[in-house]
Amino acid sequence: MGEFFEHFFQVKSRKEVEDVITSSLRSLDTEEVPLDFLLGRVVGKTVIAPEPLPPFSRSTVDGFAVISEDTFGASEGFPALLKVVGSVSMGALPSFRIQRGEACDIPTGGALPEGADAVVMVEHTESPDPSLVEVFRPVSPLENVVRAGEDVDKGSVVLTRGQRIRPQELGLLSALGIKEVTVVKIPRVGIVSTGNEIVDPSESPRPGQIRDINRFTLKGLVERSGAQAVFVGLVPDEEAALREACQKGLEACDLLLLSGGSSVGTRDLTLKVLETFEDFELLVHGVAVSPGKPTIIARVGEKMIFGLPGHPVSTWIIAYLFVSRAIQALTGAYENPSVRWDQAIVDQNVPSAQGREDFVRAKVQGRGRAKTVTPVFSKSSVISSLVEANALIRVPLESEGVYKGEEVDILMLL
Amino acid sequence: MGEFFEHFFQVKSRKEVEDVITSSLRSLDTEEVPLDFLLGRVVGKTVIAPEPLPPFSRSTVDGFAVISEDTFGASEGFPALLKVVGSVSMGALPSFRIQRGEACDIPTGGALPEGADAVVMVEHTESPDPSLVEVFRPVSPLENVVRAGEDVDKGSVVLTRGQRIRPQELGLLSALGIKEVTVVKIPRVGIVSTGNEIVDPSESPRPGQIRDINRFTLKGLVERSGAQAVFVGLVPDEEAALREACQKGLEACDLLLLSGGSSVGTRDLTLKVLETFEDFELLVHGVAVSPGKPTIIARVGEKMIFGLPGHPVSTWIIAYLFVSRAIQALTGAYENPSVRWDQAIVDQNVPSAQGREDFVRAKVQGRGRAKTVTPVFSKSSVISSLVEANALIRVPLESEGVYKGEEVDILMLL
Repeated sequence: MGEFFEHFFQVKSRKEVEDVITSSLRSLDTEEVPLDFLLGRVVGKTVIAPEPLPPFSRSTVDGFAVISEDTFGASEGFPALLKVVGSVSMGALPSFRIQRGEACDIPTGGALPEGADAVVMVEHTESPDPSLVEVFRPVSPLENVVRAGEDVDKGSVVLTRGQRIRPQELGLLSALGIKEVTVVKIPRVGIVSTGNEIVDPSESPRPGQIRDINRFTLKGLVERSGAQAVFVGLVPDEEAALREACQKGLEACDLLLLSGGSSVGTRDLTLKVLETFEDFELLVHGVAVSPGKPTIIARVGEKMIFGLPGHPVSTWIIAYLFVSRAIQALTGAYENPSVRWDQAIVDQNVPSAQGREDFVRAKVQGRGRAKTVTPVFSKSSVISSLVEANALIRVPLESEGVYKGEEVDILMLL
Repeated sequence: MGEFFEHFFQVKSRKEVEDVITSSLRSLDTEEVPLDFLLGRVVGKTVIAPEPLPPFSRSTVDGFAVISEDTFGASEGFPALLKVVGSVSMGALPSFRIQRGEACDIPTGGALPEGADAVVMVEHTESPDPSLVEVFRPVSPLENVVRAGEDVDKGSVVLTRGQRIRPQELGLLSALGIKEVTVVKIPRVGIVSTGNEIVDPSESPRPGQIRDINRFTLKGLVERSGAQAVFVGLVPDEEAALREACQKGLEACDLLLLSGGSSVGTRDLTLKVLETFEDFELLVHGVAVSPGKPTIIARVGEKMIFGLPGHPVSTWIIAYLFVSRAIQALTGAYENPSVRWDQAIVDQNVPSAQGREDFVRAKVQGRGRAKTVTPVFSKSSVISSLVEANALIRVPLESEGVYKGEEVDILMLL
């Protein structure tokens, strides 16, 4: 059995692995998607404003549209007296024009009539009769007004490539009358579960067997990362079966995840099978990350394949760090929606070995500078520890651990 | 027009409004949902482990299953010599039993044979021939083993009511053979847009009209908060039309959002219409939050209705703070998935008025203690400012502003 360990692991650091992923993948093709389905999508082509926003100058208060100069010097003691020549209705352009000495009443959001350049808030006025208004405070030009194009100029950039669409972007698109946006296609991520001991969760495991776990954690993470999970199948540790599943997955998907059995034998099998594909290239064989060291990343043509470690916790952490990064690269998104780094004060010592970057399951409490984090020590095979944890403490590669009271990097488990 | 302002605003603080929302709503009914569709759902009933996890004691390494006592005192110079009596296959229970002086080889994840109580890593052994193994390091009882039930005991609590299901919970459920979970129904949130000046985004606005914005920002926020958005309709500022839309929305939905026109007239109309419903109760009329003061929260029977301010930015901030809270209350979730508070150092002075809690659009940079936040000053009607911002700075109720260098609360705009 010793020969398994003679296998040469040219272990790469997290940063190196991230660079390999980013440089090996390019973003998928784009498609036109209507406004109703854009939430969470990644912009594939710069969006330009087809018209100004607002399309006309609007009042931001209820009050009286005026020529600002007519109010200069107005005060409680010496109000400016203006003639009310009309009333602006919502949803219509006023048909009249404001001349010197005139005003008109205007609701919030109403279109500013020609001639007027400011609005006096109703609180700063009094109307002795409907045809007159007394103004008690001066307004400056454009006060209480949003100018046409002040929000967005016609022709200006509204959204840029790589931006992820949040609710607020939907609002802006709607305001500008943009009915669809060119976005990057949703990556399809294939999942193949392997291992003689693994059974489909719908079946009752016989003694010595366990149910498939990784399929579901991976599916969840893939969906959180903005991609679509495709379950390709559960296959035993047999070359022909694994090759067929890989073939199928590579044809149907943009990225393939093999959540291998946990034994060295399975890992060797994964590599053996992948090597039979034309255009196979081994990109990463072992990562300096714990748990998760025996990770394989390869490429068959343009498609990337992850050979994930078997332990559910290792698989999860590696997927969190690297699969989400691959999905990000496939969408060309600026940010990785499933990975959120933060910092916190660790409240006990966390030992580690040099030469690997440790990710220790932990619980975060508090916020801002008072944020503290407590490690949840547990075997890597104990999946309930991931349910208990809400963060991972990062112990850097070059360090022998982190010390109580130190500020550490944490990865939030969303 | 002055009489609009005689309307009495019994303005409530954010905390008071949150309490009103929480105490006025209870969580919806539950339903059984299969594993494949559980991501993001809120647990409605405690989930108990039907069996232990793992179901049998497993090795966590590749190596040799032994009786730990046989290895005590073993070293490089004086290895323990054990007889190899078999080999554990993945997915099967070993048929043999380990006796004193015996060992068997076992892969990671393999079932520990009867008699054995630990596993020696293959790296710490050598096999002079297939029937013998030399062990160079002692192992203690249970070393490199996960005991049956060590991860989860049979009968223990796996998930509790109010917990939101993340990818890692899916894995644990699968491991335990739990095929469906009782979760709280997804709240249906109706959206009614009102305002004479508002047109459907599919139409071309005439001069003086603008396209509906709030419908889309609200839809996005509702979906982000784990609810389903139902667009009820766009209605003019007319009593009959608004009442009909409210009636329809109240029948079809669990929560109703009226994104009113921005004028005082519309707000008064909203209240007038709501008052015609039997079991109407006004809960909040004005909030000490800026922007967003003229917010109405009411109840008709068991259903809550928000009369949101008209400005898209105010609407968005109020929905962010309070509608997401109402959705949380309807699901009984521990946490509000769309609201994430943090803290950062503000890099310039932000003035404010006492007696209201200000939420100032801002941009956050850096992380941990180095996190800084810069206000994006802009009129509340400028929706592009929300697209530019990634956070809101909170200026407390009792404060006249925050000062450069101060640590402030921020609400992240996800």
